[in-house]
Amino acid sequence: MRVEIWTDINCPFCYLGKARFEQALDAFPHKDEVEVVHRSFELDPTVPKGDTGLVVPHIAQKYGISEAQAAANEQGLGEQAAGLGLPYLTAGRDYGNSFDLHRLLHLARAKGVQDAVIDALYRGNFAEEDSVFADEEHVVRLAVAAGLDEAEVRAVLADPAAYADEVRADEREAAELGASGVPFFVLDRKYGVSGAQPAEVFTQALTQAWQSRSPLTLVDSAGGDACGPDGCAVPQA
Amino acid sequence: MRVEIWTDINCPFCYLGKARFEQALDAFPHKDEVEVVHRSFELDPTVPKGDTGLVVPHIAQKYGISEAQAAANEQGLGEQAAGLGLPYLTAGRDYGNSFDLHRLLHLARAKGVQDAVIDALYRGNFAEEDSVFADEEHVVRLAVAAGLDEAEVRAVLADPAAYADEVRADEREAAELGASGVPFFVLDRKYGVSGAQPAEVFTQALTQAWQSRSPLTLVDSAGGDACGPDGCAVPQA
Repeated sequence: MRVEIWTDINCPFCYLGKARFEQALDAFPHKDEVEVVHRSFELDPTVPKGDTGLVVPHIAQKYGISEAQAAANEQGLGEQAAGLGLPYLTAGRDYGNSFDLHRLLHLARAKGVQDAVIDALYRGNFAEEDSVFADEEHVVRLAVAAGLDEAEVRAVLADPAAYADEVRADEREAAELGASGVPFFVLDRKYGVSGAQPAEVFTQALTQAWQSRSPLTLVDSAGGDACGPDGCAVPQA
Repeated sequence: MRVEIWTDINCPFCYLGKARFEQALDAFPHKDEVEVVHRSFELDPTVPKGDTGLVVPHIAQKYGISEAQAAANEQGLGEQAAGLGLPYLTAGRDYGNSFDLHRLLHLARAKGVQDAVIDALYRGNFAEEDSVFADEEHVVRLAVAAGLDEAEVRAVLADPAAYADEVRADEREAAELGASGVPFFVLDRKYGVSGAQPAEVFTQALTQAWQSRSPLTLVDSAGGDACGPDGCAVPQA
């Protein structure tokens, strides 16, 4: 079974939602047969690369709320994070363009360390002072500590075309699947879970998707030349 | 869309079937959105590791046919291979235990080079004199030329537990999906194609699976806390 999770490193509910999903997954009896893939979704691709600023005043201005309200929201997110055992810096978090981070997550997938790298980027963004949007050395440190090769990380960051098509393809697929926000969880391309739902909802989704695994429809039921334990269609090794 | 192909390096129809599938895939309009994964299936796990011999007498004895008939079958496979532009050594191919090769294919998947490595192992087995079952240096050369790191290849080959669970999990899944022989192609866990069918059958399967991609069923349609282009559920970055 496969679970695809569309996320953005900018997205606090993606950070929280991943932890809630993992609570459900850890308790799921068929955990070992579940493959998790992280997919790209940019919340705000219009922010210029390298541009950054503190989240609280940015949010206050963007959505026309008071800075006090924006700060209270961050406080609330910090409390939810603490409840999940996740570190969260309630003051000082910044915003920025996440395209390069998504490209890096595709490199990480190709190298088999995507889950570790996304965790590192989340923590780097939500729990550390250094910026993941404006401080490339911070990103390199996080990615290397999570298992990527330093030279490969630098090469991908330096080449704007590296994995760019893969990020765009993920974003197209999100739209095709009807995702307008993140986190967005897709199970075997059959079931969807929108948002950082409680762990029980993920348990329900995993169970439902598992139970609905259906027998395959054979496209040509006559079958073609094949080999089995008793030999090949015409006996061959 | 995802296509999973259960195969064994021992299996001539897997070698031919992959080429026919690729003919269909190359012409498929949504090719860029198709991900291919190779999965493990051992045709004969009872052959002791390192044990090998020529395929023709082995087949003749195992299935009670004459050596001339077994040789004629190899000749026929060679002709089919030639028709697909694939090299094939009609005399001299050997048999053996493929467990280590499957473990290596899982390493290759983790490193993003599975397709190149399986092609290399097929050619190493079907078109080269050196054995992939009894000559570990041949396997190392093939795997490294296909993009794997030599030290990692040697480490996996030297450790019988490396990726062993992944091979067993693939084999369990094959049984659950009803595959009793290979090659066995599974599209989005909905459609199956058994055997090295003509390219037209793969085209039909790809088209059918593409058209039947269905809208997701949302497990909790109320949705949870999420972030979108217009902000988070409570406005956050």
